[in-house]
This record gives sequence, structure tokens and C-alpha cells, in this order.
Amino acid sequence: MAVGPDTFPKMLPVEGFELGTTSAEIKYPDRKDLVLMAIAPGSTVSGVFTLNRFCAAPVTLCKEHLPQQASDHKRYLITNTGYANAGTGPDGYENSLSVCRYVAKHADVEVAQVLPFSTGVIGERLPVEKIESALDRCFENLTIDGWDDAGLGIMTTDTRPKGASVQIDCAGTPVTITGISKGAGMIKPNMATMLAYIATDAGVSKALLDGLVKEAADLSFNQVTVDGDTSTNDSCMLVATGQSNVIFETGDEAGFTEFKTALVKVFVELATAIIKDGEGATKFVTVRVTEARSLEEAREVAYTIAHSPLVKTALFAADPNWGRILAAIGRASIDEFDVEKVSVYLDKVLLCEKGSVARSYVEAECAAVMQQDEYTIEIRMGLGDVAADVWTCDFSYDYVKINADYRS
Amino acid sequence: MAVGPDTFPKMLPVEGFELGTTSAEIKYPDRKDLVLMAIAPGSTVSGVFTLNRFCAAPVTLCKEHLPQQASDHKRYLITNTGYANAGTGPDGYENSLSVCRYVAKHADVEVAQVLPFSTGVIGERLPVEKIESALDRCFENLTIDGWDDAGLGIMTTDTRPKGASVQIDCAGTPVTITGISKGAGMIKPNMATMLAYIATDAGVSKALLDGLVKEAADLSFNQVTVDGDTSTNDSCMLVATGQSNVIFETGDEAGFTEFKTALVKVFVELATAIIKDGEGATKFVTVRVTEARSLEEAREVAYTIAHSPLVKTALFAADPNWGRILAAIGRASIDEFDVEKVSVYLDKVLLCEKGSVARSYVEAECAAVMQQDEYTIEIRMGLGDVAADVWTCDFSYDYVKINADYRS
Repeated sequence: MAVGPDTFPKMLPVEGFELGTTSAEIKYPDRKDLVLMAIAPGSTVSGVFTLNRFCAAPVTLCKEHLPQQASDHKRYLITNTGYANAGTGPDGYENSLSVCRYVAKHADVEVAQVLPFSTGVIGERLPVEKIESALDRCFENLTIDGWDDAGLGIMTTDTRPKGASVQIDCAGTPVTITGISKGAGMIKPNMATMLAYIATDAGVSKALLDGLVKEAADLSFNQVTVDGDTSTNDSCMLVATGQSNVIFETGDEAGFTEFKTALVKVFVELATAIIKDGEGATKFVTVRVTEARSLEEAREVAYTIAHSPLVKTALFAADPNWGRILAAIGRASIDEFDVEKVSVYLDKVLLCEKGSVARSYVEAECAAVMQQDEYTIEIRMGLGDVAADVWTCDFSYDYVKINADYRS
Repeated sequence: MAVGPDTFPKMLPVEGFELGTTSAEIKYPDRKDLVLMAIAPGSTVSGVFTLNRFCAAPVTLCKEHLPQQASDHKRYLITNTGYANAGTGPDGYENSLSVCRYVAKHADVEVAQVLPFSTGVIGERLPVEKIESALDRCFENLTIDGWDDAGLGIMTTDTRPKGASVQIDCAGTPVTITGISKGAGMIKPNMATMLAYIATDAGVSKALLDGLVKEAADLSFNQVTVDGDTSTNDSCMLVATGQSNVIFETGDEAGFTEFKTALVKVFVELATAIIKDGEGATKFVTVRVTEARSLEEAREVAYTIAHSPLVKTALFAADPNWGRILAAIGRASIDEFDVEKVSVYLDKVLLCEKGSVARSYVEAECAAVMQQDEYTIEIRMGLGDVAADVWTCDFSYDYVKINADYRS
């Protein structure tokens, strides 16, 4: 199940960024489950990672390797599905390091040039031998046209691949931004979501890229939630190869604003695609809080609504049970406020005003909005002028089915 | 669905506390839905109420009336189900006040002597005429033996009534404590849960009673969660009639310790009965966090686990998917800690140690614990010596069904 049509786009290649995918039969046969990405010398690489304290061994290794990398040599990202290699202790660390060493040896680079990523069941052992014996095929398959296979290769409970790709004009030179993401459950990213890889042929200085990936993740992956659970493996990587000859050193250059806007758009497409494919999702809902006093306040209210099981089951039922929305607002951890100033809209339809049901309320009108696949719940707090969006999905029978059956 | 056998006990009457129940056909025909409780002159009455800012009109009225009450006259508690009279604005306030006025007139007392309680769907109008025309029958039915009917009369999505009753010896004199509660969804009480009424024939000074109800609620209703949603109508009332001639003025008297222990036990029984009857519940799980640095920290970790939809669906599946438990601990909003010190037990079976799966882990042993109707997940944080319990239930298909169908 997923919301809306599968809109996997035509993926424009990014010069200097190759992808090679294969089936290593890590957990299931005949499933693409191992993806190697090769980054040309001269690129910059930035990433944001989960803030979950039980972060996975590959996340620990990424954080260790990134500062040691030499940008004038090739670099590699190696991703497996099936097992997350989280909660696996020192053995898990050794296993991820072993995979990095294998890649490094094959490519004749230092081991720190390799960043590992894993996603899947937490706590089980990474089958290193299977991965290593399949890695040669990944190397053989490396191509700048490898995005489609890689999009499939990083999926777990996803029902469809997630991609975004744009080409923009930066002061007369075309620049490409292309990315993929995966994730459907354990989605309440904290600095980044499950896995996302975005590449551009613009050149971006390391300092600028570090800021960009944080800012873009904050406006995209950090605004989504399926179930409120933050993954142990969240990683979001942004690579700038510089092969387009458009170079941004400080962000003051011509075309940077357009570039940044397009980059955030790609991040948002990849993040919302995760929610539309959320486990059991039948609805894609934007929870928009406006007139708040601060961004933290707006997000706290939006997340309290988006995490409420009672709201989420009402979304599934397309039932304008607005009392559940008010009850969620009323328990949000924010400073005191006047409930009389709060109003709630479903798209353009006024649902609540002055803290209770609107005088103009007609249930059929509200139910009609909620019958749609996608709509917005807007909360106007009447307190200030700050707004925030959180994108979420409903809780369906299938959410329970998927998560009660998963692993078995 | 509910966990374990229906254990509604023999309800010992409390002298000075009468209950009268009837069917007012408020929302459904042939269902007990209106309960009047009459409190003898000379009693003390204390209550704790929801901290949800969208509190219901009856909660507002309770808070207004309580300080105005004269203890030398009769007092009344009037409860309806069907409609919560929350989110109903000034009209809702007038409707609850009208019901209080009707009771006051019939009983020839001041209107402040009446405390109103409502539970059911949020936001729809209270059918005042139906309630008032049925009230005479409640007065006719008033009896100290009315607990069983009252337990039925306050139910909404509950599948069974919830009661607790004990008699203890206080320095040679028997003292009775009897109570009922209701609630199954929108359960994450904040100072009190949906509705609970506990009466004793001990005499307790008002100051002492105020402290007792807060402390007992904190150790019971404030330790449970079904879905993390705090109700707009939570109210917990404690009445001490003093008719046993055992009088506690300061808490220093002989027998007070025994009384308080028994009182907390009644509160805990009523609170855990709500979780066992949680919407769709098939499991009753104690999440016990030990070795924490503070009570707040222990509860935050316990609630993060107890609210995780991924943990709750794994409880439903009886699947020892311990990675979900670690992931929840890892995202809890607490100060930094060393994941290497964390261990997790299912009852007496060690599941995780040093932040990952235990060396001794045997999946079948853990699955066997989780097949039980009731068990404990214990998290040892390795940080300090503070502990807290949170009682919760699983997320099943029926949770979604109940909440997607409710109202329709």
C-alpha cells in the first residue's frame, strides 16, 4: 500500500558519481540488496546521521572515516539491506570494517575512503562473506546510469523506489541534482532519515556542503514522521562532484540561490516519498502549524498531532473527529496558551474556531476533504507568526500487520 | 478483547456514599449511562483533573465548585457517558451547569454542592433534556450497594467494569475503601485518568485528602498509557465519609500507614484494570526502568518504550524484536548515557547486555515470556538507583478497528 501514483522519475546521471548494484542474497534470494557508489576524486562529501544513541556500527564508522578522507582520491559508499548491523557490539563494528577493507583493497584506496551503510533488521549478524563475494559484481556494474537499480537496491519494507532528479541553470551552466532515499517504518528522523544519497555535479566547498546538507535535511527529512520511532541507522549523504564546472566556494556566487532551492526541493521530494510509502499508509497528510511563537513550539504541536494514534486512526477512517486533534494540541509540551484563540482547518474548510467546533461546521464537507489521498490539517495558534510543516501518514490495519509480521 | 479474566470483585459498601444508576438513552438505548453519587454531610472530597488545556466543561465546573462546597451539607457527583461535553465552548459550560442546577434543586442544596463528569465523544452537544428527565430515577435508585451498577454505568469503549474494594483494620476498627474506574482509549493520564471514584468510610482531613489523592494518582493513574493521548475529561475523585469513626487529621495517627498502603493498592488496581481493558489490548506489560538518575528520566525512558508503535506491535506479535526496544531507549529525551551499560530483561530472561543482544540469548526463551498475557520488560540503565514502572498494552488490529470505527 502507498499513497498516490508511483512517480519514480527519469534519473539524470551525475558526472563523477557511479552506482553499481547486485544481489548478494543477504536475506532474500533474487533481490537487489547491495549497492556500491563511487565518487570521483575532487568531490566533496557531507552527511548527517541519526542522533539515536544506539547508532549502528556503520554509522560509527562513517563518522570515523569522513574526517580522515582524502578528497583527491576516489571514495566509495557501500550499502547493504537485510541487516542493519545495529546493536551488534564490537563484532558488528569489525564486520562493517571488514566490508570497508574489502572495498578499499579492490579499489586500491585507504580504508577510510570507504563509508558503510546498512539497513534492515536490528541486532542480527551481518553476513560479511556473502557481501564480500558479491562486491566484485558491484564494481563491474558501476555506471553513472545506475540510479534506477540503486533505488531498488536500498529498499527494505518500501513498496517502491524513491527518487528525485532535476537539472537547473546556474548562471548559464546546467547543473544536475539527483538522489534516492529509502524508508517506510521507524521513521522519525533526527537530523536525517533512514538512508538518502544525493549527488550533484556542482562543485561545493566542504564547509558550504556541510551547512547545506544540515539545512536541507532540516527542511525535509527532519519534518516527516511515520511512527515517531527514530532509526538507529539514519544517514543522509550529499556528494558534490564539481564535474559541471559550476563551483560554489562561499555561497555568494551567481546561481547559488537557485541551486540551493533546487537542492531543498530534491530533499523534500525524497522525504515526502518516504511518508507516501509509509508502512500501511493510505493518506499523506501535511500537519501545518501557523501563528506559533517559535519553530520549536510549532513543531512540538505538529508532531504531537502527527504521533497521536487516535488522530492517525481517524485519518485512516477519514473521520473528522476533531476532538482528537484538539486533545492532542492540548497536551503538547509547550508554554501556556489560550485555547480560545486556536482554529483548525482541513485544507480550506474551517473545522474548529475559538477552541471548539466551528459554527459553520458541516461534517460532510470535512469528511470530503479527508476522503482525499492528500490534504493539509492547519492549526492556527493565534500566538505569533512562526510556522512549521510536518508530513505524516495514517495508521491502518496494514501498519499493525506489517510490524507484527516483520521478521517472521 | 481484554487481558486476563474479568475480576470485578465483591464491592463492599461505604457508609455515607450512595450510588444511583439508570439508563437515560443518552447515546444508545438500553445502556446504563447516568450515575449519581451522593455524599453524606461531614465528608471530605478531593480530586485531580486532566492537565489537557482543552479540558471539558464539566472539569472546569468541578474546579469552580470544589472550593465553594460546604462540607456540612450533602454533595453530589453526576456522571454521564455518551458525550464528553469537551470542545463545546460556552454552550457546553451552560449545559453542564444546567444539569448541576437540576440535581441541586431536586436535592435542595446549593448548585456548588454538585460536581459534574462527562465521558464519550468530544465536541457534540450534551443532551440536557434526556439527562434531566432521567435524573429522578437516579435519585430513587440511590443506595450504598449501588457500586456494581455504577461500574457499568460509567463505561464507554470499556469491555468490562473496573472495581476494587478492600477492608482493612485500622488500630482495631475496620475501614473500607471501594472504587470504580473507566477508560480504554485516549489514556495517558496527566494527574488523573478518564474517570475514577474512590470512597472510604475513614475520615480524612481535607488537607490530608488533597495530598493523598495526588500521591496515589501519581503512583497509579499517572503510570499507565494505552496510546499516549491525554484525555480532556480525566477526573479522579476521592471521598472520605468518616462514618467508620477512624479519623485521620494529620497522617501521624495509628493505622494511617496501613490505610495509605491499602488506598494506593486500590488506585493501582483501578489503573491497571484500565490498561488490561485497553482498546484492542491482548497483553498487559509492565515497563520497568531501574538504575536511572532520576524519576523523570526513568519515566521518560519507560514512556518512550511504552508509546513506540513498533514496540507495541512487536508485543502484539509476541516477537522479541529487542532492536525496537533499544531504538526507543536510544531516542528518549534524557541526558547523555553510555549505551554499553544498558541491559534489558523480559521477566527474568536477559535479552540485551552492554547495549546489544545478550551472549546467552535464546529466541525461544524470550518468545515464551512474550506469549504470556502479562510480563515485565525491565531496562537497567546503569546510571543510578531510581526506578519507575509504566503499565501499558500492545497495539493490535483491534486497536485500529475500534478507533477507525468509533463514532461511525
